[in-house]
Amino acid sequence: MKKPLILVTNDDGIVSPGIRALVEEASKLGEVVVVAPDSPQSGKGHAITIHDPLRLKRVKVFDHIEAWECSGTPVDCVKLAKHVVLKDRQIDLCVSGINHGSNASINIIYSGTMSAAMEAALEGIRSVGFSLLDYSFDADFKPAKHWIPGIMSFMLERPFGEGELLNVNIPQLSEEEIKGIRLCRQADARWVEKFVEGHDPSGQPYYWLTGEFVNNDEAEDTDVWALKNGYISIVPSKHDLTNYEALNTMKAIETVKKATEKQIAEDITA
Amino acid sequence: MKKPLILVTNDDGIVSPGIRALVEEASKLGEVVVVAPDSPQSGKGHAITIHDPLRLKRVKVFDHIEAWECSGTPVDCVKLAKHVVLKDRQIDLCVSGINHGSNASINIIYSGTMSAAMEAALEGIRSVGFSLLDYSFDADFKPAKHWIPGIMSFMLERPFGEGELLNVNIPQLSEEEIKGIRLCRQADARWVEKFVEGHDPSGQPYYWLTGEFVNNDEAEDTDVWALKNGYISIVPSKHDLTNYEALNTMKAIETVKKATEKQIAEDITA
Repeated sequence: MKKPLILVTNDDGIVSPGIRALVEEASKLGEVVVVAPDSPQSGKGHAITIHDPLRLKRVKVFDHIEAWECSGTPVDCVKLAKHVVLKDRQIDLCVSGINHGSNASINIIYSGTMSAAMEAALEGIRSVGFSLLDYSFDADFKPAKHWIPGIMSFMLERPFGEGELLNVNIPQLSEEEIKGIRLCRQADARWVEKFVEGHDPSGQPYYWLTGEFVNNDEAEDTDVWALKNGYISIVPSKHDLTNYEALNTMKAIETVKKATEKQIAEDITA
Repeated sequence: MKKPLILVTNDDGIVSPGIRALVEEASKLGEVVVVAPDSPQSGKGHAITIHDPLRLKRVKVFDHIEAWECSGTPVDCVKLAKHVVLKDRQIDLCVSGINHGSNASINIIYSGTMSAAMEAALEGIRSVGFSLLDYSFDADFKPAKHWIPGIMSFMLERPFGEGELLNVNIPQLSEEEIKGIRLCRQADARWVEKFVEGHDPSGQPYYWLTGEFVNNDEAEDTDVWALKNGYISIVPSKHDLTNYEALNTMKAIETVKKATEKQIAEDITA
């Protein structure tokens, strides 16, 4: 049987330990090609590079594995991988990560790791983002590596319908402490920001983003609950941002009904 | 009655004609404060700036309107506006745009304009992103301006529940040609990318992103349909990327059920 073709990317950059761990596991299951950013791209969300040219360079980072570093964002990496590096070849799976740090809950929207995976899904490629709840460079990826082949094999062998994108987060626990996997929805948590204010050497003010993760959604079907209780969380994800509930509510509001007719601007400001 | 406080931002930069048109309409309805990027930030999605300090500078761009330019992304602008510029004040509405170009369908996920609006919604602020289907600098914003006050007033006066975020797109038509407003869902369209390849003056290769918008979702309840048929599209939007349909399907799959128990990695790769 032909080996599946697995595209590996991340947002921490091609020389981070997390992507190395993922490449090791992926290469046991298929032919691996790596296209990843040449510098850290955390927090880049679904950014793409429109106003500047992109650079793409073959590099020797992993033994016996084709690898390219790219000057763009994680989403740029996926687009370049598909259209330039792997032109005309079918990609069987895209895996992104292992991210150094959580992409559970609202983090998905800021995450370069998950945006790369989502971009692959938009291109029709089955895709998984992996994140470990440990931000440190020296994070221990061994427990994560125990679970990753199973999840990759599942995605390779057992399609579950359209929108094949998984957001997988792994708690910072030992192999023995991890209780298993939970299928979850995204918890409705958010970041409460603070800015550290300072002055640069020439006396000009600057602001540096920091913040605190606040979760008011304690339900047991959420990813945050699963992770807090020793489980790996898997959230099947998609790119539809429509608020269907609000759509139905709004359709029932008289002023909005009127708004669907001509000249409502005057009506509803009157 | 106290005037509402309206935060205005965008992704095309503080000196673009689109934000000027929006500031003009917003200032008829409330007290306006502008915090917008100091350079074009199209396609920045939900990117935030983590690894660098941000600059924030009071500027004189609009008559009698407090305005600040920021070195960061559109999402950074909203965070800085709330926590640094407007510290402790209640923001009644955030409006983002008017974008030069469409943010209908999948464009929402790449859009700095919509990501700024979504960030405001995450902060609990009612929020609207406005986009005109005309990418040119000299776009005619007059027809859009006819409809914008009504939509802003609706958001200020008539809350329709949680998740108060609207993605408003306006067709490139005259005031007379616009047929009205349609409440829609996000069409399931995507971009098919191409890269223009070239060599820079020193002979190094580069790749420049371009692409074609492809829509296979022709249903009449979509934003793409509405715009094509002469209507302004309004898609109520939210930040939950959970694929609930896939979640239910996956829960029914035996191998995934097993995966929720310990040691499935071996099971499902066997």
